[in-house]
Amino acid sequence: MPSAEVVSIGTELLLGQVLDTNSQFLAIELAKLGIDSYFRSTVGDNKPRIRSVLRQALERSDILITTGGLGPTADDLTTECIGELLETPLFFDEVIFDQIKKLFASRNFPMPDSNRKQALRPLGSDILHNPRGSAPGLIWKLRQEPLAKIGIKDPERPRLILTFPGVPRELVAMWNEVAAPFLLKHFDAGILWSTELKHFGIGESALAEQYAHLLDLANPTVAPYAGHAECRLRVTAKAHSIEEAQALAKPVIEEIKKGSAYRCYGIDGETLESVVGKLLSQADLKLTVAESCTGGLVSQRLTEISGSSKYVALNVVTYSNQSKIDVLRVSAETLNVNGAVSAECAEEMARGALLLGYADIGLSVTGIAGPDGGIEDKPVGTIFLGLAAKDFYAGKILRLGKASTRSEIRFRTSQEALNMVRLFLLDRTIIAPKPWSTNQKSVVS
Amino acid sequence: MPSAEVVSIGTELLLGQVLDTNSQFLAIELAKLGIDSYFRSTVGDNKPRIRSVLRQALERSDILITTGGLGPTADDLTTECIGELLETPLFFDEVIFDQIKKLFASRNFPMPDSNRKQALRPLGSDILHNPRGSAPGLIWKLRQEPLAKIGIKDPERPRLILTFPGVPRELVAMWNEVAAPFLLKHFDAGILWSTELKHFGIGESALAEQYAHLLDLANPTVAPYAGHAECRLRVTAKAHSIEEAQALAKPVIEEIKKGSAYRCYGIDGETLESVVGKLLSQADLKLTVAESCTGGLVSQRLTEISGSSKYVALNVVTYSNQSKIDVLRVSAETLNVNGAVSAECAEEMARGALLLGYADIGLSVTGIAGPDGGIEDKPVGTIFLGLAAKDFYAGKILRLGKASTRSEIRFRTSQEALNMVRLFLLDRTIIAPKPWSTNQKSVVS
Repeated sequence: MPSAEVVSIGTELLLGQVLDTNSQFLAIELAKLGIDSYFRSTVGDNKPRIRSVLRQALERSDILITTGGLGPTADDLTTECIGELLETPLFFDEVIFDQIKKLFASRNFPMPDSNRKQALRPLGSDILHNPRGSAPGLIWKLRQEPLAKIGIKDPERPRLILTFPGVPRELVAMWNEVAAPFLLKHFDAGILWSTELKHFGIGESALAEQYAHLLDLANPTVAPYAGHAECRLRVTAKAHSIEEAQALAKPVIEEIKKGSAYRCYGIDGETLESVVGKLLSQADLKLTVAESCTGGLVSQRLTEISGSSKYVALNVVTYSNQSKIDVLRVSAETLNVNGAVSAECAEEMARGALLLGYADIGLSVTGIAGPDGGIEDKPVGTIFLGLAAKDFYAGKILRLGKASTRSEIRFRTSQEALNMVRLFLLDRTIIAPKPWSTNQKSVVS
Repeated sequence: MPSAEVVSIGTELLLGQVLDTNSQFLAIELAKLGIDSYFRSTVGDNKPRIRSVLRQALERSDILITTGGLGPTADDLTTECIGELLETPLFFDEVIFDQIKKLFASRNFPMPDSNRKQALRPLGSDILHNPRGSAPGLIWKLRQEPLAKIGIKDPERPRLILTFPGVPRELVAMWNEVAAPFLLKHFDAGILWSTELKHFGIGESALAEQYAHLLDLANPTVAPYAGHAECRLRVTAKAHSIEEAQALAKPVIEEIKKGSAYRCYGIDGETLESVVGKLLSQADLKLTVAESCTGGLVSQRLTEISGSSKYVALNVVTYSNQSKIDVLRVSAETLNVNGAVSAECAEEMARGALLLGYADIGLSVTGIAGPDGGIEDKPVGTIFLGLAAKDFYAGKILRLGKASTRSEIRFRTSQEALNMVRLFLLDRTIIAPKPWSTNQKSVVS
């Protein structure tokens, strides 16, 4: 099994200005391909130091993967250092240069002269195509001669160099679309196949307890991870083909799906907004959201899904009391007596959204995202959700705690709000009347 | 100035199961203390490999900082490897053992036998107290003799070893309460002070070209960084006090602020939404946003700022044509003749938002975020923005290119939309009539 070493290049990493998420992404992806990784290094923008780290990585690993240092500025040194280390001159690649020029033209931006530098590459290397950015990386297959020339240990062992830019979205696209397929073919190694079962409404430790008997399995392996206001169980199988791996994983996946029931909302790339979108599309229903404290976050997440115009026609952010009255027909009395942060207001907002948007489902969010604005019986993190449909109403109160930031409270609220729509569409008996009974009056209308 | 190398130990890091946020924390903290860092390494739970990485770090740096591998299990190898590398036996420290026992007692937990291992430390080392967890780390001041014994280069240069557990909350507490005060006193080093000047409307390479003469300065240093649809210039000064560092940086900061003018929108933690919020508050003006393709993202960003209820009362996401007619009074004729993605529609949306929200500024966004929906003269990434106020209208067309994802197009659009409000509030002559003339009809009403 080949081994790889990731070398992250950039002084900004050593100063802590940037968190190196690329290394984690590559680590996960390398493991999936069955490629070992024993070391990882980070070095600043300094030629002798970069060369020493690259040389060491080439000596102790089969694959050297660099991130960063491919940009147009004077402190972007990666390609130059690779050329110097391997005592190979760089040449100006007209094909790359044309791509760079076209990219600038398509963005209506004049191309600065410094970008010419990105068209240089060492003789003998190939282009690692970059589907997202101005400059590509390199793929360089090294055989005995050039390695022996610079005195690398074990030169008869072939080496591979891949370079990536530091911008995560470019690196991820290059990996998925170009580098991973190349490596799979190049090494013909076994494969790791994995899937994530995404959960909402259960914590990481509860999940680990429920499936404790699965966490010690050898193949497939099962591991829980905490996500962003949700949890995941990752099932990974090792085999010679994807089909074989999937067959190994299948019984475990089915056990988890059965055990978790509606708490498992989807897999892999699915999100609460994509699942809600799929359910709305299938049922041919329209949703209108009226948000207060989340300020448009629920709407933004719903419309992040391509094709969401099928089920989203209108959403509103009624931030002030007056706008709740004007736009949603919330009664002034409710606002005076119960306040904008109340079960009563959430219900009137949801019903108002239903009417305003000529929708099938009206969803409302009102609460206190903080850090200011909390009062004694309604501290920061107190949120009321409402969901209205024909002959249906359910409300829910969240108490998210003062320890969370404004941004965390808003995100978790958006998760709960989307999940409420999901449960309604799956089986409305799940959300009414219990465990929604905190708000007695408006549980079921 | 001393140099430090952080070595992160743990196979879970090389598998990507854990994101190494400790390294970033330590990088920032070391820079604050004026301690250089030229390299960073990560290694798995394997004794020969750990020893080789530790030896290398001791050779090329003055301070070796390890994270991870201090736990009670068989794959926690850090202390053992340090002892082996320095050919120094470990002894059982009764004082540490008492602390561990007390901690377990205080949590009403029986102490597993494996925790005895955490009481071992090399002869000659000191304890790095852990205020949060079961086991402390080490501080080991190494002089010439032990270094020479194992053949380290330059043994006459004193070295320092600090070990930390991998659990971030324990590491942070140990750093802040014990290690940082120790290092400050031990080295009596200066400090690094830095600030970021955030730019919008100019690319990283253009920024680097404009300030090329500053990028070679030694103190303060100036470096450009690409951000998320924006750029930053970071100015860093080294001195004996914050005041002295700020005085060194001041002329450079002033030069950049003058040279960039309105393209420099803020510093450090400021965002376009926070700057727009500050300007709206100061001018006591209210903004209403009508979004189509951004689906609530502009609204969500505006309301992410605590206190935004002062200037946001109502925003709307009019995703369908009908909702643009119903809510914003866009004319059916405009939608039929020019389409929803047009300068004319953006203008009517902005004017409609102004009226609907009883606002001082109406902002509109309509366009094609993709990946579907593009047509020949309006490909994916074509966006129209509109800004209406009393006796004022300006429109802008964006062509963001098909290479970007839906999410990138939406985010960049939200940057442009917020920036348009910012420029209007700073000096409305900047945004009218040029360079906004692509949309001839509606440049100035």
